[in-house]
Amino acid sequence: MTIHPRRLESYVSGRWTPGEKDGQTLLDAATGAPVAVIDSSGIDFAAALAHGRDVAGPKLRKMSFHDRAAMLKALGLALMGMKEEFYTESLHTGATRPDAWVDIEGGIGTMLTFASKGRRELPNARVLTDGAVEPLSKDNSFSAQHILTPLHGVAVHINAFNFPIWGMLEKIAPTLLAGVPCVVKPASQTAYLTELMVRRIIDTGILPEGALQLICGSVGDLLDHVTGQDAVTFTGSAWTGRKLRAHPAIVENSVRFTMEADSLNASILGPDAGPGTPEFDLFVREVAREMTSKTGQKCTAIRRVMVPRAHTEAVIAALRDRLAKTAIGLPGDEGTRMGPLASLDQREEVRARIRDLQAVAEIVAGDPDQVSVTSGDAEAGAFLTPVLLHAAKPFEATAVHDVEAFGPVSTVMPYDDPAEAVALARMGKGSLVSSVFTDDPAVAEEIVLGVAPFHGRVLIGNRASAKSSTGHGSPLAPLVHGGPGRAGGGEEMGGIRGVKHYMQRTAVQGAPRLLSAVTGRWIEGADAQQGTHPFRKSLEELRIGDQLVTAARTITEEDVEHFAHFTGDTFYAHMDSAAAKANPFFDDRVAHGYLIASFAAGLFVEPNPGPVLANYGVDNLRFLTPVYFGDSLQVRLTCKEINPRANADHGEVRWDCQVTNQKAEIVAQYDVLTMVAKTWPLAQAAE
Amino acid sequence: MTIHPRRLESYVSGRWTPGEKDGQTLLDAATGAPVAVIDSSGIDFAAALAHGRDVAGPKLRKMSFHDRAAMLKALGLALMGMKEEFYTESLHTGATRPDAWVDIEGGIGTMLTFASKGRRELPNARVLTDGAVEPLSKDNSFSAQHILTPLHGVAVHINAFNFPIWGMLEKIAPTLLAGVPCVVKPASQTAYLTELMVRRIIDTGILPEGALQLICGSVGDLLDHVTGQDAVTFTGSAWTGRKLRAHPAIVENSVRFTMEADSLNASILGPDAGPGTPEFDLFVREVAREMTSKTGQKCTAIRRVMVPRAHTEAVIAALRDRLAKTAIGLPGDEGTRMGPLASLDQREEVRARIRDLQAVAEIVAGDPDQVSVTSGDAEAGAFLTPVLLHAAKPFEATAVHDVEAFGPVSTVMPYDDPAEAVALARMGKGSLVSSVFTDDPAVAEEIVLGVAPFHGRVLIGNRASAKSSTGHGSPLAPLVHGGPGRAGGGEEMGGIRGVKHYMQRTAVQGAPRLLSAVTGRWIEGADAQQGTHPFRKSLEELRIGDQLVTAARTITEEDVEHFAHFTGDTFYAHMDSAAAKANPFFDDRVAHGYLIASFAAGLFVEPNPGPVLANYGVDNLRFLTPVYFGDSLQVRLTCKEINPRANADHGEVRWDCQVTNQKAEIVAQYDVLTMVAKTWPLAQAAE
Repeated sequence: MTIHPRRLESYVSGRWTPGEKDGQTLLDAATGAPVAVIDSSGIDFAAALAHGRDVAGPKLRKMSFHDRAAMLKALGLALMGMKEEFYTESLHTGATRPDAWVDIEGGIGTMLTFASKGRRELPNARVLTDGAVEPLSKDNSFSAQHILTPLHGVAVHINAFNFPIWGMLEKIAPTLLAGVPCVVKPASQTAYLTELMVRRIIDTGILPEGALQLICGSVGDLLDHVTGQDAVTFTGSAWTGRKLRAHPAIVENSVRFTMEADSLNASILGPDAGPGTPEFDLFVREVAREMTSKTGQKCTAIRRVMVPRAHTEAVIAALRDRLAKTAIGLPGDEGTRMGPLASLDQREEVRARIRDLQAVAEIVAGDPDQVSVTSGDAEAGAFLTPVLLHAAKPFEATAVHDVEAFGPVSTVMPYDDPAEAVALARMGKGSLVSSVFTDDPAVAEEIVLGVAPFHGRVLIGNRASAKSSTGHGSPLAPLVHGGPGRAGGGEEMGGIRGVKHYMQRTAVQGAPRLLSAVTGRWIEGADAQQGTHPFRKSLEELRIGDQLVTAARTITEEDVEHFAHFTGDTFYAHMDSAAAKANPFFDDRVAHGYLIASFAAGLFVEPNPGPVLANYGVDNLRFLTPVYFGDSLQVRLTCKEINPRANADHGEVRWDCQVTNQKAEIVAQYDVLTMVAKTWPLAQAAE
Repeated sequence: MTIHPRRLESYVSGRWTPGEKDGQTLLDAATGAPVAVIDSSGIDFAAALAHGRDVAGPKLRKMSFHDRAAMLKALGLALMGMKEEFYTESLHTGATRPDAWVDIEGGIGTMLTFASKGRRELPNARVLTDGAVEPLSKDNSFSAQHILTPLHGVAVHINAFNFPIWGMLEKIAPTLLAGVPCVVKPASQTAYLTELMVRRIIDTGILPEGALQLICGSVGDLLDHVTGQDAVTFTGSAWTGRKLRAHPAIVENSVRFTMEADSLNASILGPDAGPGTPEFDLFVREVAREMTSKTGQKCTAIRRVMVPRAHTEAVIAALRDRLAKTAIGLPGDEGTRMGPLASLDQREEVRARIRDLQAVAEIVAGDPDQVSVTSGDAEAGAFLTPVLLHAAKPFEATAVHDVEAFGPVSTVMPYDDPAEAVALARMGKGSLVSSVFTDDPAVAEEIVLGVAPFHGRVLIGNRASAKSSTGHGSPLAPLVHGGPGRAGGGEEMGGIRGVKHYMQRTAVQGAPRLLSAVTGRWIEGADAQQGTHPFRKSLEELRIGDQLVTAARTITEEDVEHFAHFTGDTFYAHMDSAAAKANPFFDDRVAHGYLIASFAAGLFVEPNPGPVLANYGVDNLRFLTPVYFGDSLQVRLTCKEINPRANADHGEVRWDCQVTNQKAEIVAQYDVLTMVAKTWPLAQAAE
């Protein structure tokens, strides 16, 4: 315990800056001891926004997606190496080690997942194409391509107190991957942990200056200065979120605003999942875990527990047993299963909300005013016993669908059939997540599709996924996090979807030659160059539009017969003229699609060792015109996309492959995917 | 001219309803004669919303995407058949025939495009999957799939006066395709045309009751009743848009709000495009056309004209000549090139804004207070001469980037290099569209990428696309319409993107067996059934998860040699052991990828005539492990998606195809696409 708490600083405009006033003292959740002092007065917030936009923006935008992914990977690995320091600081927040694991390693893991997705799912380029080329003319003289480019502003991330690290990292990872600088404003109560991590991040020197700024304390007039190129995200209470959404500068400039608010998430026990089934046990375990993990201070926690009427007593009894075993105490003690709430104020708030719920539901487990702790001081720390309520008439008890006690509190309510469970879940008016415990596909279908429009995520729990399930309460980097209505209407993460939130989508129309110049990708109708066989060019020499037009090859009856017997593919349309003619798509015997693709490769391949190392796949292959005996096939192969890998001697090259017949009809169209060396000969081939 | 103007009615809760009060009289734009009276007082707006949600919502959601696409197609064709009636009514708005063509046939065409995209790009299903399956466990016991389901509310579309038909149809087409009912509120000034079309739509009986409601007049307290399942779109002035965005019920319930506001769109003449080039002429023609078409009353019209300093005089002279030839008169007259503004009030408003612009720019063509008409009464009709201004110091003349005269008015401004043109364009703080006229790929790249983050659409004009270009001012159904910042931050259309705006995205997690039940698609790890060869099953009998596991086939050196010489694909990695070993991906000679796919087909194909009619393509083929001589290949083919066509005897079936070697390593993974008969034998095959 320290007598002189640490004074937090903000990191803005390239400097660590303490506030000018005395500030607010932040107390340890479990002991009540002062931890830190926070204040942001005197900061020039307009200058901080400009610093991000002008200093970091251009640097980030100059990097490719792969450069930025590598930056995130380096940062994530560096932070993982220092994790114990964060665990120690995290104790002040009241989080047990498992609670802190979600925050710290869950947060760093999320950053690493974005790094990995950036490298695997995005090109090594600065412009992202979105969707297919839209041909807007029959002669390919006018087409369109949607592109995504990074916003020229900053993203202001205003976060909640419960996940001081994950809350920051899950937002800055996709933002930085998009190429947009961040300003992070953590909730004051636990800002010391965020501040510690930002210090470590800045110290690594991995991020360009200005890419990450931190505000410890009030954001002052910052929001007055946001523009249409900035984005603001908010995680926290619906009340504050509404105020921000209606902020004059946000409204005036159509600033992108993403809100993720606490919601009254439901978990539903399927009608098939009575006592004795694995799903019943999984359900009880999950509800108890979601009530007590992080002391129930999770925006995704289960607040409403819907059970078949016949099983209500059994569920309550099982939950009562489980909750009674929850050892409450100091978060650093090994025996502790649940730490305190974040602050004494928070405890008073939760107690008040429990009283609201008691107007329509009765307490069936736990006493909100009595807590027995295995360690620590029950009054100095914000300890609270888990409280389970029961609402016997849930359709009338509207408060259970409206009032959120942000702590270890849930309400059990009965339903009579799946449609009723769906109706009750919807009474939450939009939630982040719902879960259904069932092993019956029909129940899963009815309930999931019934609640889906009201949720950003739905988890199905059953015996088969018992060991591998990540659980009701865990948002995952590849999945959308957010929900409609009361949950704020926002969408975060969702893999690369989350990156696109910080980019502008633009439809670009024009002649293919000029469109190709903008997107860096060859499209139909753009210029093409012939000459040296393009398979003889390394990535150093290859350019989009490099093209090969092959000689023609006639397909004979003999070829088709031969291929059929060689491969075993004696499908009647290749073998039997009368049967082929009866087929609605063919006028006579046709060549195999795989024969066309095989002959095409025979026509375009360059047999000798060269920079093209391997054909690793084919995309979007369509057989567009049947090939009959005597048809003569020709291939046009054009270099379409070049994607050099950052940490390898090669890269991916995508080729447009068009096979035509003697009437110039397109017989087959596809993309050929190859690995191509950056230089030729290969350095390591010189053995 | 009629003395008793038509009294407009609203169509709400299944009834045509006049307002209870006297209402406002709407005047013909060209003659000043009364056309209609509008009033919506006395309507129960909460009931109208409930009617849409409760009566039409369930009906629309029961239909598949293809059902709804067919509904839109039938409606579009019916409306096209009555188009002359709309052209006649449209004359009152001041629109010439070409102006009305954009509104009427452009609007109906947009609806037909959505119908066509719905059938071609969406499945014949009610649930849309979004993105790839996310495997969340190594043993495939827990995975996720994002799905999209229709919102359970209604979409309230609040539209502008300038496109009374297109403005409605471009919004209701994607909304209805998504499965969501609409309430349309047209701007009063031209609501008579919207009302006429809604009458015709309702009369066709093609839409389920409640799918389309219309409010002629004020929306009263309607917005107080929107929920988190509803969506509100607004097209019109930024001022009104901001008020709506901050509406308490919209903020409180996180209602999806899409705004599309007028913006100060720029057109840029490239530095390469001096007088004498085709691009110069195209630019002058486009600017003049955008100034005068619809009398400049388009949210996409060119308001700012950026030209290389050296060509300023030439551009002004050419525009002055062209504008002088604009015959202004009654919209119904064949000789008229430009009709009146929408109303006399509108003319006063435009004149006032021109005066604002004159503070920083000088008029170089046209007199705002003098108009000479070829027909009609210059004072009774809202006629106005096109006005061109010139701002010599555009970086200082901030008003030209801020003040919008919503009429035939533009300002020319000089720039010194492309970076300056980009900077000027960005001073509009976000626009719907920009255009660049250049034939130089480097100019196109610099300017387009420079302005893209500030725009929803960018058009490149050049000689190659001169004939096929759809022009600066035309939003197209396949392309995003909307822009950031001042343009409102909204996104409309964009093909299927526009449909998704009315659906909720939900990440569903669980065991693959249960996930498959929810999505209706087989995924890895879900149950599979073996038995009858699945190629012997018609769509009537086939189920997802129907699976074939083939016998194994060993690939020999002889096979590879034979295939190489037969196809001509003698790539060294197949032929030369030493050279193959030098390749970084191979340990020795490998089999051709196309040979693997061909042998796989030989293993899984069913040779006799049957319900599988054709293999029309392959998707996402990846060769994952090299195949060496002596490796033994086996195929597992599983029915993944079934997509029966509404108007054919067959449908598409997608098969998951996995080829493994003797070590159970996956050698190749891809989707095989087939056409399968609905019944077998085929009805028409019985000849």
